[in-house]
Amino acid sequence: MTVSGVGVKRGSCNMASLRKATVISVQRGLHGSKNTTEHSRQQPKELTKKLWSELLPRLEYVLSDCDGVLWHSNLVVSGARDTFRKLREYGLKVGFVTNNSTKSKAGLLDKFKQMNFQITPREIFCVNNLTASYLQSRKVKGRVYMLGTEALQNELEGAGLRCNPPGPDLADGHPQSWLDMKMDTDVEAVVLGFDYHFSMAKVCRACTYLARPNCHFIASEADVRVFEKNSSGIVLPSTGAILAAIEAAAGRRAVIIGKPSTTMIEMIRREYPEIRSDNTLFIGDYLHTDIAFGAKNGFTTLLVETGMHSRHDLTQVKDSSLKPTFYTKSIADIFAFMQ
Amino acid sequence: MTVSGVGVKRGSCNMASLRKATVISVQRGLHGSKNTTEHSRQQPKELTKKLWSELLPRLEYVLSDCDGVLWHSNLVVSGARDTFRKLREYGLKVGFVTNNSTKSKAGLLDKFKQMNFQITPREIFCVNNLTASYLQSRKVKGRVYMLGTEALQNELEGAGLRCNPPGPDLADGHPQSWLDMKMDTDVEAVVLGFDYHFSMAKVCRACTYLARPNCHFIASEADVRVFEKNSSGIVLPSTGAILAAIEAAAGRRAVIIGKPSTTMIEMIRREYPEIRSDNTLFIGDYLHTDIAFGAKNGFTTLLVETGMHSRHDLTQVKDSSLKPTFYTKSIADIFAFMQ
Repeated sequence: MTVSGVGVKRGSCNMASLRKATVISVQRGLHGSKNTTEHSRQQPKELTKKLWSELLPRLEYVLSDCDGVLWHSNLVVSGARDTFRKLREYGLKVGFVTNNSTKSKAGLLDKFKQMNFQITPREIFCVNNLTASYLQSRKVKGRVYMLGTEALQNELEGAGLRCNPPGPDLADGHPQSWLDMKMDTDVEAVVLGFDYHFSMAKVCRACTYLARPNCHFIASEADVRVFEKNSSGIVLPSTGAILAAIEAAAGRRAVIIGKPSTTMIEMIRREYPEIRSDNTLFIGDYLHTDIAFGAKNGFTTLLVETGMHSRHDLTQVKDSSLKPTFYTKSIADIFAFMQ
Repeated sequence: MTVSGVGVKRGSCNMASLRKATVISVQRGLHGSKNTTEHSRQQPKELTKKLWSELLPRLEYVLSDCDGVLWHSNLVVSGARDTFRKLREYGLKVGFVTNNSTKSKAGLLDKFKQMNFQITPREIFCVNNLTASYLQSRKVKGRVYMLGTEALQNELEGAGLRCNPPGPDLADGHPQSWLDMKMDTDVEAVVLGFDYHFSMAKVCRACTYLARPNCHFIASEADVRVFEKNSSGIVLPSTGAILAAIEAAAGRRAVIIGKPSTTMIEMIRREYPEIRSDNTLFIGDYLHTDIAFGAKNGFTTLLVETGMHSRHDLTQVKDSSLKPTFYTKSIADIFAFMQ
């Protein structure tokens, strides 16, 4: 699964800005980026062996999305393992950056191992884990009110934070009893990830906590749709829908951890402080998270066509921050270019 | 209850505009209004007997919000009945315009009768009823996928439309089975009102229907919070939260029926075609729905302080379309001025 996004422009988070205008965009946080380089303003080119051989000597880091680039659910993309093995042989540092908010870092490590990828824990940048780190960095000591899965709960508790368990809210199914809901007095942060049991009672609880001025408001990511190849035509909504509801009712904006938020690059730089715009390639399948994130940080970007978007989508895109430097059919093409 | 709003700017509804920037505003549809008159750009004045006596001869219509102006839940605002009786004695036409999406027109008529207001059905403009009328005007014949209450269901079925019943979705509680959900093939409109049983399964279903290009997308209103005096400090989210989630995941904007949308004035004009900016007063307790709606249509506006907002809130407001012409403590003051 690769998750797609429709969201809301990030700006300063005071109420004055909240009261200002608004339209839905396809991904939060794409607008107002000042770091877009010439790369993304040029027309995207198909990656060739020649272009790759010119790019490779400049690179020190290759960062990549996971779902839709390395695998689809439990099926590995052919050649993905070989490509990263080869990149490591060339002395490049690699990192895997995912917005999947249903996975913990431990769960993701397991998945990489099951799929026989070489991996070390520090190479994984996963939003649930980074959300917990972010709360630690903000010295949150009180209870966390969480909308999410067991994976998010595990990461929060692993970081020494106390939170509610996932699952239905006690007030679910008793809709008119919300005014009688018991609230925790020591909640210091509302944290959103994907929640299978999202409900109006949960929106009510989150908004009530967020009415406390010092309560932190964090979303692991803001992707609004899950990319899943299915013949049923069913559209799977994602965390961005939960976030939109709670931001609307609370009248507050959340800090977003995942791509394309700048919070993500701050978290990556803790591990890889030498990352610069001229020595890093970002690979992804989704224009509004992966390519936007890469462009925002001035990285060379590569769109692979094994997931959400293909070269055909580029003709519809006007925003230069959504245009990759290069596109290619699959991550496996890089391995082929290195033969 | 009077409902408050944080929402999203309305604009042209094509995908290009959806992909543009966004911030949350306190009420959808406030921005880009071209009909704001000088009234609302002047500083609001406290209504006095003298000002009222100058205004009254110009008026032919008095339109009023209900919750927070006429009553709070089951308690009538003292003097409200007398005021409207007196206005009728002066030969004025009156209308009651409410965004409450948990009430049908019949239910609202009952409430007026229980509270001993003189009322005729054509004087009531209620969003569930107008939503059904709107769908009729758009010649919708297929099934409606509804998020709402029995009140909305009754209005839709009363207009000859077929829809699902309110209540939990069959997939609720089976979160990972969404890909197996059965979809109706003949759904022609997704209609949102307040839904006590809002869930991720419902977002999924709505988005899947909305992926059909010809599927209508209507929200009865976009208020994001319910105003309810309660000592528990619990914040009650409203329909705008549901709408924000589904718009985000669907990547589409809904047509909004309720205040301050221009759809509402179109519906009112069917009953009162002689309404003009210079002969109409709009009374309400909520700046972002009532006053914005009045200002958008060039009406004289009166903020009463028995509900959501008071004169103190006006000092925080910079947007001229949120400033009433006048403010006063209660609707009862008008009755006093007419003695």
